[in-house]
Amino acid sequence: MDVHHHMVGITADQLKEAHNADLAIQGEEGVVFKQAWADPDSGLVYCLSEGPSEDAIRRIHERAGHPADEVHAVPLEV
Amino acid sequence: MDVHHHMVGITADQLKEAHNADLAIQGEEGVVFKQAWADPDSGLVYCLSEGPSEDAIRRIHERAGHPADEVHAVPLEV
Repeated sequence: MDVHHHMVGITADQLKEAHNADLAIQGEEGVVFKQAWADPDSGLVYCLSEGPSEDAIRRIHERAGHPADEVHAVPLEV
Repeated sequence: MDVHHHMVGITADQLKEAHNADLAIQGEEGVVFKQAWADPDSGLVYCLSEGPSEDAIRRIHERAGHPADEVHAVPLEV
């Protein structure tokens, strides 16, 4: 799970565009971005992905133009 | 999306037990808890739910014994 803190005012189209920018290059790092949720009021965006490492996820987000502020492994899911 | 900060060392069984405690009473507030992801190392747990208000979600988590440290509406999803 990674978190972005500064996306105040993000729109549905911008969220989709950002997600598509990740999808376009994610294969180069073996990452699969699955879902993302955004709160335009607080500027928080949560992205759920699978990948070989936190760094791989960071690199895709950076190259796509929206570096993550936090990346946390979430090995447990229910 | 709500976030718990202090669940260091949480196990898969404990995550399931906590989630089931929410499910058992969520209907009383019209909340539906959908998924949860946990990082035992950092103690972070993320819960995705739908409900009528942030307060409703807070109340269910409190009554189930694991109050949320943050609750954020996430009206956008991709």
